[in-house]
Amino acid sequence: MKKSLREIAELIGGKIVGDASIEVEGVVEIKEARKGEITFISDIKHLPLLETTQASAVIVSREVKEAKVPLIQVENPYLAFSQVMRILVPYQKPTEGVHPTAIVSKGVDLGKKVSIGAYSMIEEKARIGDNTIIYPLVYVGRGSRIGKDCLIYPQVMIREGVKIASRVIIHSGTVIGSDGFGYIPHEGKQHKVPQIGRVVIEDDVEIGANVTIDRATLGKTWIKRGVKIDNLVQIAHNVVIGEDSIIIAQVGVSGSTEIGKGVTLAGQAGVVGHIKIGDGVIVGGRAGVLKSVPPNTVVSGYPARPHAQAKRIEASILRLPELHKLVRELKKRIEELEKKK
Amino acid sequence: MKKSLREIAELIGGKIVGDASIEVEGVVEIKEARKGEITFISDIKHLPLLETTQASAVIVSREVKEAKVPLIQVENPYLAFSQVMRILVPYQKPTEGVHPTAIVSKGVDLGKKVSIGAYSMIEEKARIGDNTIIYPLVYVGRGSRIGKDCLIYPQVMIREGVKIASRVIIHSGTVIGSDGFGYIPHEGKQHKVPQIGRVVIEDDVEIGANVTIDRATLGKTWIKRGVKIDNLVQIAHNVVIGEDSIIIAQVGVSGSTEIGKGVTLAGQAGVVGHIKIGDGVIVGGRAGVLKSVPPNTVVSGYPARPHAQAKRIEASILRLPELHKLVRELKKRIEELEKKK
Amino acid sequence: MKKSLREIAELIGGKIVGDASIEVEGVVEIKEARKGEITFISDIKHLPLLETTQASAVIVSREVKEAKVPLIQVENPYLAFSQVMRILVPYQKPTEGVHPTAIVSKGVDLGKKVSIGAYSMIEEKARIGDNTIIYPLVYVGRGSRIGKDCLIYPQVMIREGVKIASRVIIHSGTVIGSDGFGYIPHEGKQHKVPQIGRVVIEDDVEIGANVTIDRATLGKTWIKRGVKIDNLVQIAHNVVIGEDSIIIAQVGVSGSTEIGKGVTLAGQAGVVGHIKIGDGVIVGGRAGVLKSVPPNTVVSGYPARPHAQAKRIEASILRLPELHKLVRELKKRIEELEKKK
Repeated sequence: MKKSLREIAELIGGKIVGDASIEVEGVVEIKEARKGEITFISDIKHLPLLETTQASAVIVSREVKEAKVPLIQVENPYLAFSQVMRILVPYQKPTEGVHPTAIVSKGVDLGKKVSIGAYSMIEEKARIGDNTIIYPLVYVGRGSRIGKDCLIYPQVMIREGVKIASRVIIHSGTVIGSDGFGYIPHEGKQHKVPQIGRVVIEDDVEIGANVTIDRATLGKTWIKRGVKIDNLVQIAHNVVIGEDSIIIAQVGVSGSTEIGKGVTLAGQAGVVGHIKIGDGVIVGGRAGVLKSVPPNTVVSGYPARPHAQAKRIEASILRLPELHKLVRELKKRIEELEKKK
Repeated sequence: MKKSLREIAELIGGKIVGDASIEVEGVVEIKEARKGEITFISDIKHLPLLETTQASAVIVSREVKEAKVPLIQVENPYLAFSQVMRILVPYQKPTEGVHPTAIVSKGVDLGKKVSIGAYSMIEEKARIGDNTIIYPLVYVGRGSRIGKDCLIYPQVMIREGVKIASRVIIHSGTVIGSDGFGYIPHEGKQHKVPQIGRVVIEDDVEIGANVTIDRATLGKTWIKRGVKIDNLVQIAHNVVIGEDSIIIAQVGVSGSTEIGKGVTLAGQAGVVGHIKIGDGVIVGGRAGVLKSVPPNTVVSGYPARPHAQAKRIEASILRLPELHKLVRELKKRIEELEKKK
Repeated sequence: MKKSLREIAELIGGKIVGDASIEVEGVVEIKEARKGEITFISDIKHLPLLETTQASAVIVSREVKEAKVPLIQVENPYLAFSQVMRILVPYQKPTEGVHPTAIVSKGVDLGKKVSIGAYSMIEEKARIGDNTIIYPLVYVGRGSRIGKDCLIYPQVMIREGVKIASRVIIHSGTVIGSDGFGYIPHEGKQHKVPQIGRVVIEDDVEIGANVTIDRATLGKTWIKRGVKIDNLVQIAHNVVIGEDSIIIAQVGVSGSTEIGKGVTLAGQAGVVGHIKIGDGVIVGGRAGVLKSVPPNTVVSGYPARPHAQAKRIEASILRLPELHKLVRELKKRIEELEKKK
């Protein structure tokens, strides 16, 4: 889609330096930008590229006053650019309505302007809110509710009794509401504990591909407002994840653990069950958290410790071969001293 | 579903202390229990909650003789409570029979009371045992056999030549019988080794969501009776997992490794290929097992070592910064002593 | 399928020692081989098994001159045997053509001899090359292109604008082209960055089950020729993986990282974003790579270091408890010396 800089600047609340009538239709990173494309600079170290870029316009921060190339000045260039991405490359919405092959069981309550794709199966008494898009090959279990303006990608599986609020995005292959992993060992056998709880997912959550979120044993597994979950993450039964937390790829959170608000769990981290991670905690990549973490702490390593301590320990480990050597040497010198006695 | 304490006590073999005619219809944890609900105490430290709970009845161990609230005494309260969960919240079985959109290819042998969900595809010569439930959007490959009383959740993929015994549960998104990862490097290229073996899954196995179990190169990948596998686990080709072993989320087991009976692999652990893990071994969370482990051993850490040694090493690491400091100090004192000579 | 040794030797370019008219129909490992079966020896230590095997023929290297059992001598016995596997157990191709329930949207360009399975959905303007097999329950997004001779297993999800070249194999449950994980924190909220880039997968790539490969923010996520990816691997947005690299199960590669040619990332390894892994690098199992790695290096551990250094450090750690003990002892001896002064 083609837009003039004037139109773009209006939409993103920016100020143009240069010819406002110029039109752009492509969005691209500054190093690859060519004529007809708009790009951005958010990192000060890329400013020299303003001299050489072939782009037709660059979104910059307000501190950048002028350049050879037309500018749009904004407060947050990357944020503004990301809005321009959606303007120039609009989301291609699937056809509205229920595909003739989609199965909408009796007692299902469909909102307005819902789209349900081919070969999707909505079980009895489920409810789908206005404008929600369900792609092909999705399964929605009995009595599950999905709010407004959600995007459910192909091959998502939502089991019975799951509650999903509004503006939630779920990527392909993700499984919501599978049984929690619970057994009671008795007389040499594992007896399955029925998993009869629910999963509740609040507004503005986004969940990546091939994620697994188990239903609670009793009560609920609870993903609160604004949480963002990357691919291949495991969320066990009865876990609670606080508002706006970020869970990066391949993280695992064990049963009944409570994660606070605004927490970051970096890639491949693991958190044991039945602990609390305080608000604002940052857990480093690959960290293994074995006990509760107080709010606003940065932890890393395995077992996870306060980051400064973990760094100190790591530095000590690096110098360990030389420490062994030094101690051997000191031992000899002591022996010398002892002989001389 | 509503049941009297008398009915419940009979079903779980318990003894009532209090009014047997009281009816309950909800199951819940003791802290959240209200009137009309039944709960349990299995941990002695929760006994004081008996004084304050609003529950209409509590399942307790035989040592608990009386309380304000009606009790049902049993040997194993959590096990009994888990049976009550299934009584009060019965499993909602899908409609029996083959959904009109399910494709049952020629030569497929269906048992009695089988349920096959919408848009599931059963390839030629497959066999499905009595009472087995196959949810929608499942794929069962050519010649695969599934026993009696199995539960195959939506979007499970079972490739050709897989043999699944009875009372097996497989959760959504799980892939059984994908090709093992085998290549022969030759003249600078990787040549694929055909994976023509099978997967055999014995009775009473449960497999979580988004698990991958590869077929064998030759012979079989073999999951034995009673094994329980959590979500996002990787089982490579030709692996054998012994009876009643427990594999927790995000574990990976590499090719041709043999896991004994009653083994626990805790979350995110990894096991290299071509080794043996003895019966009764416990592998700690996140452990990396690089060589065979004798029976009834507890190992942890990376590389995995006997747990006591791993703990000792971990404690030594924690004291490492102070060790560096101490050695520097000792060095000075030695220098002092040497000078004085 | 039954074949004579003469036929087999011709097909694999081998030389027969013994009766060329003998027929075999099974392929199996040497320890389990019986009459009517062919097997192989590639490891010199298995040569004594030639004396006792029940196999009807054994594929061996040219150095093995004779045995009781008929031999086929070749240069690379395992490679030759893997070819024999495909000859005796041919790949069972699904029926050619578009299944009546498959949905091929308008503007889709289908090559010759394409097979599209039941309940698969091909969106508008997609293109499928000659001889490509798409199994049931697959989704191919708008405008995506798949080349010739590809094998797309059941329940694969390929989103819009993905480009897949020829002879590519994708296993079940794998998601190609899901949104990259990108947000801009602004005024206490995470704002989604549209992910409008593509995924490009070149010739001869094989991708395991339940893998996730995210589309680029801008530009492309790029899997180059001959790359082999095992199960449950995470490839983030804008990652580049060089020719013939091997990515083993449960590895995660973070955004914008470039992996060179012929690299091996062993199981459960993790690589942070925005770094470069040089050609020919080997990253050990479970290693955590936090910075760029020069070509032809072997790294291991967390954080990943040159393998020799990592081994030295690991050995030092093992001896750490005794080092603590030794230093305590030396301290006492110093105190003794100091007293005597």
